[in-house]
Amino acid sequence: MAVVAAVDLGGTSIKGALFSKDGKLLVKTSRPTERDKGYRHVLQNIKETVDNLCREMDIPLDRVRSVGIGVPALMSDGGNFVVLAPNLHWRDREFVRDFAGLVNKPVYCHNDANLAALGEWWQGSGREMQNLLMVTIGTGIGSGLILDGKLYTGLSGMAVEIGHMVVKANDGLVCSCGRSGCVETLTAAPGIVREAKRLAAQHETVLNRKQEIEAKDVYQAAAVGDRVARQVVDRAAYYLGVAVANVLTVLDLEGVIIGGGVASAGDTLLTPLRRVIREQLLFYDRRPVKVVLSQLGNEAGFYGAARWAMTKGGKTP
Amino acid sequence: MAVVAAVDLGGTSIKGALFSKDGKLLVKTSRPTERDKGYRHVLQNIKETVDNLCREMDIPLDRVRSVGIGVPALMSDGGNFVVLAPNLHWRDREFVRDFAGLVNKPVYCHNDANLAALGEWWQGSGREMQNLLMVTIGTGIGSGLILDGKLYTGLSGMAVEIGHMVVKANDGLVCSCGRSGCVETLTAAPGIVREAKRLAAQHETVLNRKQEIEAKDVYQAAAVGDRVARQVVDRAAYYLGVAVANVLTVLDLEGVIIGGGVASAGDTLLTPLRRVIREQLLFYDRRPVKVVLSQLGNEAGFYGAARWAMTKGGKTP
Repeated sequence: MAVVAAVDLGGTSIKGALFSKDGKLLVKTSRPTERDKGYRHVLQNIKETVDNLCREMDIPLDRVRSVGIGVPALMSDGGNFVVLAPNLHWRDREFVRDFAGLVNKPVYCHNDANLAALGEWWQGSGREMQNLLMVTIGTGIGSGLILDGKLYTGLSGMAVEIGHMVVKANDGLVCSCGRSGCVETLTAAPGIVREAKRLAAQHETVLNRKQEIEAKDVYQAAAVGDRVARQVVDRAAYYLGVAVANVLTVLDLEGVIIGGGVASAGDTLLTPLRRVIREQLLFYDRRPVKVVLSQLGNEAGFYGAARWAMTKGGKTP
Repeated sequence: MAVVAAVDLGGTSIKGALFSKDGKLLVKTSRPTERDKGYRHVLQNIKETVDNLCREMDIPLDRVRSVGIGVPALMSDGGNFVVLAPNLHWRDREFVRDFAGLVNKPVYCHNDANLAALGEWWQGSGREMQNLLMVTIGTGIGSGLILDGKLYTGLSGMAVEIGHMVVKANDGLVCSCGRSGCVETLTAAPGIVREAKRLAAQHETVLNRKQEIEAKDVYQAAAVGDRVARQVVDRAAYYLGVAVANVLTVLDLEGVIIGGGVASAGDTLLTPLRRVIREQLLFYDRRPVKVVLSQLGNEAGFYGAARWAMTKGGKTP
């Protein structure tokens, strides 16, 4: 029985799984990334993840037909080359070549949010859709796009960076990318925390009972009706909704899937987000756009990596 | 010899042409739209345009295999249904069904900017590209997208409305679509005129010698170094550049073609636009993005309509 190994590489942990040829999850595992030990060490840890999966299944490594890996990086060369991976402190790495050298089998990689979109399309919330945008919200904003039932990765593989879509040109706040007005600075966790602190300094809120405010505290407080927290979440939903509506205005898609850590906030985010998309999208009433939460949660990445490896890296348009 | 009739329907004039099966332009014509005489009358005028083309070529109408029409409208149902055509004062029209009834042959329609993109890809500036965005700038902002060598029209045909991408959320200026911060209000002809008038009231400029300022006056004055006009053009180029960079950030395309009336301004617009795209696009230096002017000019529309009709309406993803 041939299997496919799937890995979701994160800044903190490496999640891995084996999948049967017909797409069943057989076994999964997780271990620390240990990014501070450097690039070669992380590659070894990925290999070890695959080895551990084989050991747990009691199969030899040569039964693994191919390896798919989601990488938290801007990737070019069709997903072979890491241009920049801020969470791993990598830049300009021949990632696929380097990792394939360790395992001696076909390795197919891509940006983690791209593969999460593929995972949701394959076995998650996107099963019924052929054209969808997935947005993952956490420390940063990731995104992936399925067009006509295929992962869309762009000319060189650098699509689909919705986090760096500018929705508030000339906004004072500077993004990590050096520009201003990006969705990511306005809506990801650091933006939520920054805005919450700003308002908490001026108004009464349960957030003031916290020593250090985190994004999840803001979502929790908003869920139980704290007005300041609600305002912060609504503001993030507003800018995210504008960006999503922009993509829908250009691409006329079937649906949007919201994932990442913040997806656990559920309706707290989803309700205002749906309202903004409805208000911002031209002729919303003529479009059957679905806005739904991720079903696979933090497993979307390795589901997508498995599918990517199975379809031999897919096809870059 | 079978031919294809191609029509570019505008608010003022109807342009038409016949094409040979191998894509050669055989004959072209133009006549007033007479939109004020109503929907049925305009349909008759389109038919008359096709009849006139046949007469000029001295061929019977039944040698026309199919008719392609670019319509200045938001279209759904894969380009069959007019949702809204502001320049024609139409809304909710079964356009293809109605026109096909007049000519008794296959009729293939789509949004005019979508078809202009197809035309440029087929025989214009986009000949060497497989993934491109075309932006037409005039009274409004139109746009079309070629992905993997095919016209991209979205789920229902309502793609690719870049003019209503919001790049300056919460901007005070309200767009014709009812929202604020759309690229169209910031960069199309009325926005250029409005900003020019605002600055001309405060500063010395050759524009003050005009009784009524038009967008083309502003471009001309900018071309000869008028500082106020230059400022207005640079501002429009800035917001347009942000929108184009947003699309490139999401879709990672090969190139962008600028067309429409404003394209005749050439480098006056293109130079600042290229600079803004270079500044706004993440990792610009890793991307071989071309930003070029339309080659087919105001004939791009009927070139695209011919191609659309020849490929039997293409395939909506």
